[in-house]
Order: sequence, then structure tokens, then C-alpha cells
Amino acid sequence: MSTTTGTNDPLPSWNEGTSKQAITHFVNEVTTTGGPSFVPLTERIAVFDNDGTLWSEQPLYVQLVFALDLVKTLAPMHPEWKDNQPFKAVLEGDLETVLAGGMPALLEIVLGTHAGNTTEEFTETVKDWLATAKHPKTGRLYTDMVYQPMLELLSYLSANGFKTYIISGGGIEFLRTWTERVYDIPPERVIGSSIKTEFQLREGTPALVRLPEINFVDEYAAKPVAINQHVGRRPLAAFGNSDGDQQMLQWATTGSGPGLACLVHHTDADREWAYDRQSTVGHLDKALDEAQAKGWTVVDMKKDWGRVFPFDEQ
Amino acid sequence: MSTTTGTNDPLPSWNEGTSKQAITHFVNEVTTTGGPSFVPLTERIAVFDNDGTLWSEQPLYVQLVFALDLVKTLAPMHPEWKDNQPFKAVLEGDLETVLAGGMPALLEIVLGTHAGNTTEEFTETVKDWLATAKHPKTGRLYTDMVYQPMLELLSYLSANGFKTYIISGGGIEFLRTWTERVYDIPPERVIGSSIKTEFQLREGTPALVRLPEINFVDEYAAKPVAINQHVGRRPLAAFGNSDGDQQMLQWATTGSGPGLACLVHHTDADREWAYDRQSTVGHLDKALDEAQAKGWTVVDMKKDWGRVFPFDEQ
Repeated sequence: MSTTTGTNDPLPSWNEGTSKQAITHFVNEVTTTGGPSFVPLTERIAVFDNDGTLWSEQPLYVQLVFALDLVKTLAPMHPEWKDNQPFKAVLEGDLETVLAGGMPALLEIVLGTHAGNTTEEFTETVKDWLATAKHPKTGRLYTDMVYQPMLELLSYLSANGFKTYIISGGGIEFLRTWTERVYDIPPERVIGSSIKTEFQLREGTPALVRLPEINFVDEYAAKPVAINQHVGRRPLAAFGNSDGDQQMLQWATTGSGPGLACLVHHTDADREWAYDRQSTVGHLDKALDEAQAKGWTVVDMKKDWGRVFPFDEQ
Repeated sequence: MSTTTGTNDPLPSWNEGTSKQAITHFVNEVTTTGGPSFVPLTERIAVFDNDGTLWSEQPLYVQLVFALDLVKTLAPMHPEWKDNQPFKAVLEGDLETVLAGGMPALLEIVLGTHAGNTTEEFTETVKDWLATAKHPKTGRLYTDMVYQPMLELLSYLSANGFKTYIISGGGIEFLRTWTERVYDIPPERVIGSSIKTEFQLREGTPALVRLPEINFVDEYAAKPVAINQHVGRRPLAAFGNSDGDQQMLQWATTGSGPGLACLVHHTDADREWAYDRQSTVGHLDKALDEAQAKGWTVVDMKKDWGRVFPFDEQ
């Protein structure tokens, strides 16, 4: 079943070392029929954070860039924004003031730009933006800035019977517009934060309308709650990169059987970014301590990854 | 791909007629490669209500019987119940008074009996109950009182590439304890009502604790909302039996492509029950009107089903 050795390396962008070894060892264990750690197909669940785990999150979370752009696009329909914070600061390009407003300001921007339309209209807006918006450092489409080693890992787990899920702090409907195309992860296996939606008949035609009200924030201790709600099984493997993933990794390693908890540590300022305890975006502090104390796998991006992005030279 | 004709009838418990024809015609249409209504595999989603659609809901919803039994089991730990309604009435076997309390009383019973434990403890409680509790009319286990024609329909759709989902007003964690065994529908494809859960570290070990607070009531207009939240795609086919399924059936038939909306009409007082517009349990009134107006498929249990339960003689 497992295909971890021999010439057909399923993880060619992973350098040989303890991280790669921990992953392949885990997969071999749970897939070895008759072995002491064998896990039946239906229970092979692996969960992945998205921002900073599957794609880049620096210098700002991609969905935040999207929301800021949307403020500019929608401004003509909201003349009041040019006098009211945090919208005023966004329109003036004053990112410092926006970020100084903290979570309440960001929430106001998200609710102000992500609601009032139908789920289908919102999906089109996201698709249009992703088709043209470019990353400020690389000039690439955001959906190109996914990690090649993690794409290989997703395929490797799928080939070994795992169902892979995204458990993200990002918006569930933002993510679902592109995760199937980019990660081969269909909408029903994407879980994220959400605003409330309401079923309405519009001239007799049903529509789901997005309301300016938070439904669920999928971070920290809410991640295991979301996994239980959507998946209904405890995962065997969990991959994250920040303190927001800590409880999800705890949850995946609680069972009596084998469990793999893995943190992507951003250590590569040349090829990507280097940040952890001091960073606001992708803050990694307590989870790093717990990883070291409990022997979780910490992927050292600089050392463990032979290649970061699909567009990097091999 | 489709296997609807010939000697190997995939729906042997369905009598020939317009209902069976509507179902097989729909499946043939969406699975015919190159045909005008062909739908790719990833988009073949079918949703099913549970109570009254996949198993019997008379004389009382099964989960309500479970909750009433649980009041008796837990009474020694709740001495205050013998003086407080609706628990007092439950303990005195006075079902009339319980039901006269309406939804508020039932909600109080559910929150009083379904919360305070971990998800794993609750799962064990449900499994233990289902293993022994018997239906008052048939003397059968409740999980035996599923509809043979619907089991065949679930298999038939799966064999034709559909992902089948349960979208129930019943409790998501109540359902997930038995739906995989009985319907071959895994937890991640079961959606229902829920109470809030909280992630806690109990002496260092993570647990999900069930709180006495409603999280989501999966009925009426909330069903399309739940489908969007969990599945992220519009279903092609929806099966229900009551007004609580009306919006789900509307949602499934909104798309530009083929859609199948189907109501199970309880018309068989001999083999099961006969009820619709006058019944509190499984109330079917507005949805029946809409079905007739829009040409939805209405399954006449008495006429369309050659066999109702798996234990019935063929």
C-alpha cells in the first residue's frame, strides 16, 4: 500500500532528515495491514491549516489583502466610508492605522466587504480577484505561492487512503473557490471561519444571502470543535504553523493509536520568510514550546525543503 | 455507468411506476457521458432527511424516546427533577403533559439529558441505548426500522458516483453513532442539529465537552444553510417527507441542470403509518402543495414500495 521507499520518492522536494522520516514512518505504520498500528481506510483523516502551512501568509494574510482591495472596489457604493475608520485609512492607503485597530477593525472590514451578496456572487468576486491580484514581493498569483513539499504531502497521504481536510482561520467560502483546483481538496473537505447566511426566496428563486454577522471563528480551541462538527472523527495527523493550530495538534495526538503532529517552522528568509515568536502574522510561540516538549515534528523550512514553491528551480 | 434496466434491478423493493421511473430517469440523465445533462462525479450530491425519510418516526421521533428514557436513567443524579416540569411529567410517565409543553419543554429535556458529558461519553450512551431499546409497536430495534427501498436507493446512488448525505433535524452526534453501520454513510456526511461543544484540557488530556446550549437547529430554511456550510455545493437530488424539508427540496431544484426533489408520503397504515397534513410528527402540508404544483416526485409508500422494512416478507 505505502510507497515511501525505492526510486519513486513520493516526496521529492523533502530533503532526507528527521521530518521526512517522521512522516513516512507514520504513514507506513498506519497502512501496514496486520501491523500493530494499522488504521482502516475510513479512519485515515489528516487535517491541514492553510495560511503559512499550505501557502504563504506574509507580509499579510491573503484574505486580508483581498478585503482591503474590496474596500477600494466597493467605495463608490459606500460614500460614508471616506469619513469612517477603519475604511478611511484603507482608502488612504494607511495600512499602519488599519492594523493599529487590531481585530475589531479587521472584523469590521471583513463584515463590510464580505456580506450583503449571495454565496454565488461572493464566489465570483473571489475568483475574479485571485485571477489577477499579484503578490507584492514575488509578483506571482497568490495561488502560485503554495508550498511544493506540502502539495506532495497532500498527494502522498491521499495515495495512502487518507482524507485530507483544510481547517483554516480563513473564510470557508473564500477558500472553497480555489482549493479544489490548487490542492485537489473539494469544498466538503474545507472548513474555515464563516459569517451567517440566510436562505431567501428572491422572486421565487432560492438564494443563500451572506449576513454581516460572525457565525464561527475557526482558530485555537475552536479548531477541534470544527473538526468534530464537520468530520465527526478525530484526525490521525495534523499540520499547522502557528499558535492558532496548537489545540488541533493536541487533539490529533490524543488517541490511543498513532498520531502525527507537525509544525511548519518558517526559517527561510531567502526563499520565503523567517518568523515565529515575534511575528503578528503566523505567531508561533506556545505551540513551538509544546512541540519541543512533546516531540512533535517541527519542519525546518530551510533545512527540510529542497524546494519551496512550484515555480522555484529544482 | 448506470445500471437501471435489465435483470439486475438495483431497486427491487420499488414497484414499477412514476416514482421509480423519475428516479432512474434522473440517474440515467446525469450519468450519461456526453449527454446534455451529464454531471461530473465531484458534483453528484444527494441529500436525505432521516426521520420519516430513511427510518420510521412514529409514534414519536426516536431521539425523543431516547431523551425520555435518559431522564429516567439520570433521575437519581437530578433529585430536583421530580418536582420540576417537564421532567416531573416524564418521570411520572405522563407523556401528554410533556408534549403539551411544546418545543420549549422538549428542548429543556434534550439540553438536560444530552449535555455535560464528552462527545465520546455521549456516543457510548447512544450506542448502549440503541442496542437494547425496542419500538413499542413492532418490538424491533429502532435501527431495524429503516426503509428497505431507501437503503436500495442509497446504494444505487452511491454505485452511480453520488455522495449521499443525511441532513436531519435530529442531533448530529446522535445520528453519527449508527449511520455508518446502518446506511453506510460515514460521520462526515451526516449533518444535523447540534448543541455547542467546548475544547477542554482535562488533566492535560484534550476533551470535547457538550454544553447545554443550542448551536444549530437543522430544520426548514436552515437545511440549505447547513448544506452550504458542510458540503459547499448545491445538491442535485433531495429526499424528504415533511414541511421541514421543503426549503432543502427547493434548493436542490434551483440549479440550471437536472434536479430531483422527492417526498416520501406516508400512506400505508398497514405496513407502516399513514399521516400528513394533520400530524404533528412529520407534518406534511405546504411541501405537499408545492410538490403537486411543481411536479416533484411524491412517493406513495403503499403503492410504490413492494416492501417497507428489511424484516418484512418479500
